[in-house]
Amino acid sequence: MGACLKGKEALRDHGGNIDWAMAQYGGASETWIDLSTGINRVPYPLPDLPTDIWQKLPTHSSKQALIHAARAAYDTDAPILPVAGAQAAIQMIPTLGMPGRARVLGPTYNEHTASLVSAGWSVIEVDMLDCLNGAELAVVVNPNNPDGRNYSPDKLLHLADKVGTLIVDESFADPTPEMSLAAHAGRDGLFVLRSFGKFYGLAGLRLGFVMGPQDKINRLAELSGPWPVSGPAIEIGRAALADRRWAEATTTRLQQEAVALDQIAATAGFNLVGGTELFRLYDTENAQKAQDQLARGQIWSRIFPWSDRLVRLGLPGPDWEWTRLKEVLS
Amino acid sequence: MGACLKGKEALRDHGGNIDWAMAQYGGASETWIDLSTGINRVPYPLPDLPTDIWQKLPTHSSKQALIHAARAAYDTDAPILPVAGAQAAIQMIPTLGMPGRARVLGPTYNEHTASLVSAGWSVIEVDMLDCLNGAELAVVVNPNNPDGRNYSPDKLLHLADKVGTLIVDESFADPTPEMSLAAHAGRDGLFVLRSFGKFYGLAGLRLGFVMGPQDKINRLAELSGPWPVSGPAIEIGRAALADRRWAEATTTRLQQEAVALDQIAATAGFNLVGGTELFRLYDTENAQKAQDQLARGQIWSRIFPWSDRLVRLGLPGPDWEWTRLKEVLS
Repeated sequence: MGACLKGKEALRDHGGNIDWAMAQYGGASETWIDLSTGINRVPYPLPDLPTDIWQKLPTHSSKQALIHAARAAYDTDAPILPVAGAQAAIQMIPTLGMPGRARVLGPTYNEHTASLVSAGWSVIEVDMLDCLNGAELAVVVNPNNPDGRNYSPDKLLHLADKVGTLIVDESFADPTPEMSLAAHAGRDGLFVLRSFGKFYGLAGLRLGFVMGPQDKINRLAELSGPWPVSGPAIEIGRAALADRRWAEATTTRLQQEAVALDQIAATAGFNLVGGTELFRLYDTENAQKAQDQLARGQIWSRIFPWSDRLVRLGLPGPDWEWTRLKEVLS
Repeated sequence: MGACLKGKEALRDHGGNIDWAMAQYGGASETWIDLSTGINRVPYPLPDLPTDIWQKLPTHSSKQALIHAARAAYDTDAPILPVAGAQAAIQMIPTLGMPGRARVLGPTYNEHTASLVSAGWSVIEVDMLDCLNGAELAVVVNPNNPDGRNYSPDKLLHLADKVGTLIVDESFADPTPEMSLAAHAGRDGLFVLRSFGKFYGLAGLRLGFVMGPQDKINRLAELSGPWPVSGPAIEIGRAALADRRWAEATTTRLQQEAVALDQIAATAGFNLVGGTELFRLYDTENAQKAQDQLARGQIWSRIFPWSDRLVRLGLPGPDWEWTRLKEVLS
């Protein structure tokens, strides 16, 4: 197991720091194209919102309707709790029990390690799934951000038997439901996280879900308090999750456009390393230089403190964004 | 001190359970008048919302603009954290240190005791301010919900010196800024909570603030994660808190209408016990009977598990709501 253990600092930088990009390179927020996140840039169209969702505390029945839509969309009967983004679950789960030794399959979304450390866990980042065996708590982002590595439900269920608690973060799994463990959530020692904002392109809403064993979901509900999710998020989330047609059409579009993005990137000498339908990871000669080239065209990208070659790009949205990207990379 | 100690169960019922009222008494949600909460029924008018607040993760600069507006509105330079409703602060503060013995000045909003108990504190509810002296952690809701009892900043600062940690919940203090401890927040051992949704009539947004010493605010920020508040809440909150004219006009209106409500209630034999500009507490012969009388007219009120005489009413909003209330109570 020795080869598995290579501790890393908890680094907490994020995509989405477009403020900083504007301060460095100039330009107004309307003219920048932010590809530094994996948020779908063709969002679910906002439905008409009844005025009372702004005014009232969210009702029990509205929350139940949201849960019903989420269970159908994720194809599960498991105990499920709506929270203010998958991030809220990432913050809370490490506080549920006494902290111990955790392992995170990395490199990945750095909030997992940060939240575990903040709750007193000692965390080791490992780079192969098998290295998680025996951990008191293990985290797998599936498919993984930023490289798109992914594991079958069978493999992860097998892993679940070999660790104390397994957290599977499915924030980018909407286009690949066959990868999801949602149908198996509810068994002891397994948490499955879903993000609403990324696939539906509405990250500002702050909505996500956590599935798990009933006693743990009850405890998370208590930690969250009675109204963790806003009225607009409940209403929009319910409508969007019930719209399976939009989800299917969006999956098809993203699949096609991911290929188109790879082709454009190739013209700039960026080589595909991996990715999902919502973002792509490219090997470039020099990540800083690539980010700079894109930023001069007011396109913001994601680079990583642990690599001087890798650049992650989300998919552009409207046609003019694709046109600009082609120009900047040609 | 013996007379101070009368423990109570952590009861966690709330106003706003209008679902339940509809199930009992019939009627559609549009026709019910929900006076069971202290939420202003004439909300701040929603500004036009730029589409990117729904799509993007909230930016650092938008959060800073919200903080700036909140500091100006609350007249403070204290460290301050926007959270998903004052409730979120009520949930988190009890988890900051090792739990011990807390005292809550009651009867009051029952989530304080519930959250403390959930975090492992032993909690005693006391009924006089002096009975809080010596507590490891003390909670005062000022002005108090439901009876409007209130204490001067001097008195509370004096109390702060005699307890380990003092939490002052100012969820209903917007119309009485002279009561606020916000200007004194930042000193060790003091937390001041503010609610956005009640006075501004937008409880569905989930927005509130916690002020406190810098190290504790930093820790709460870490527990909250990077995006605890939605983009729409940040944008609307910023605009509303900067509009001091609306706040002044609303305060004047609420002061006048609270008197009008008392007069209507008196015609039904309800005697004023106390209240704030946002709700009134009445002594009736029989709380259950009074609630039933109001509910038959599709007006929902708040009664309490600890009293068979007291009824709390929020202020009606548009004219037709006042007309119906007069009819039902005459």
